[in-house]
Amino acid sequence: MGTVEIQIRTSQRVQARNITREVSKAVQGRTGSLLHVYTPHTTCGLTINEEADPHVTQDIMEALDRTVPRNYPYKHMEGNSDAHIKSTITGCAVTVPFSQSGPALGTWQGIFLMEFDGPRERKIFVTILE
Amino acid sequence: MGTVEIQIRTSQRVQARNITREVSKAVQGRTGSLLHVYTPHTTCGLTINEEADPHVTQDIMEALDRTVPRNYPYKHMEGNSDAHIKSTITGCAVTVPFSQSGPALGTWQGIFLMEFDGPRERKIFVTILE
Amino acid sequence: MGTVEIQIRTSQRVQARNITREVSKAVQGRTGSLLHVYTPHTTCGLTINEEADPHVTQDIMEALDRTVPRNYPYKHMEGNSDAHIKSTITGCAVTVPFSQSGPALGTWQGIFLMEFDGPRERKIFVTILE
Repeated sequence: MGTVEIQIRTSQRVQARNITREVSKAVQGRTGSLLHVYTPHTTCGLTINEEADPHVTQDIMEALDRTVPRNYPYKHMEGNSDAHIKSTITGCAVTVPFSQSGPALGTWQGIFLMEFDGPRERKIFVTILE
Repeated sequence: MGTVEIQIRTSQRVQARNITREVSKAVQGRTGSLLHVYTPHTTCGLTINEEADPHVTQDIMEALDRTVPRNYPYKHMEGNSDAHIKSTITGCAVTVPFSQSGPALGTWQGIFLMEFDGPRERKIFVTILE
Repeated sequence: MGTVEIQIRTSQRVQARNITREVSKAVQGRTGSLLHVYTPHTTCGLTINEEADPHVTQDIMEALDRTVPRNYPYKHMEGNSDAHIKSTITGCAVTVPFSQSGPALGTWQGIFLMEFDGPRERKIFVTILE
């Protein structure tokens, strides 16, 4: 069936948006051995981390911001260099082993779209590998 | 054959545990084109880096600790926010091209479980893609 | 066809070298669903980020250097610990959904070899998964 595209609308400049439900739904009933999630943008990222306590992703966002502040004399003149840098730190793809019962996420794991320059409409490409 | 699970026991709070041997053994004799290694936890990570000199992974752990200190007024109240943040920085999966002779790791490369909140028993999922 | 190896010569110690063209050429005409790009070295990395404005990758390199300075009393005595650490932060593999029309990179995305300890001759392994 190839790659499925889903759309996620973020609502803040910086936001860890849990997309586990949308991703799981997009691949429901599929067979294969690996789930690949990808974002074709350069100012957001993807990560897998704890979804139970929202403070966890908030701590992650704030730590990234202390390390890569928004305001700094960057060379790129669009005011979002911090977002590009954070995108490289998290990466723009995540992979999870997959079976008929779905992605093999751990008990506490969720898949997050890490928005660093929103709010925006973001594309997510979901692929199941054989 | 699908995904194989292996167990790794770490022995310190912060430890770069070389798991190359365990992973290679788990996929011995398999055929396919890509090795996928995954950890379903949110306070450890996986990375590929130099295995010859243990000082390399020690420098990595110490640099992560300077950037993301253990003690900080984090919002998540379990005392391990630094571990969650470091897990997002390293990621919880690594992939290596694979052939009949095994993973195509470079001369100096090894696969490491990056324990940020041990000691614990950790699960590792190993998958070979076609 | 398995994994294809390409060679990239970097020209500076620290350099974000756009390898999108070389990678795309290596897999031209291939069929499959995922592109996997890998570097078997431990002092460089791979990332996907904006290729339109070279200031973006320059800002990334400089931010990594502020976080992980070259000069520091590291334990590894080869003078390139910062390169190993940055390699773990970016990772040594990237993946992109793939179709007959090529890798599904976003409008602004390019694939970069992140050289942290050049200039050197670097190997890149390119694999297409089914």
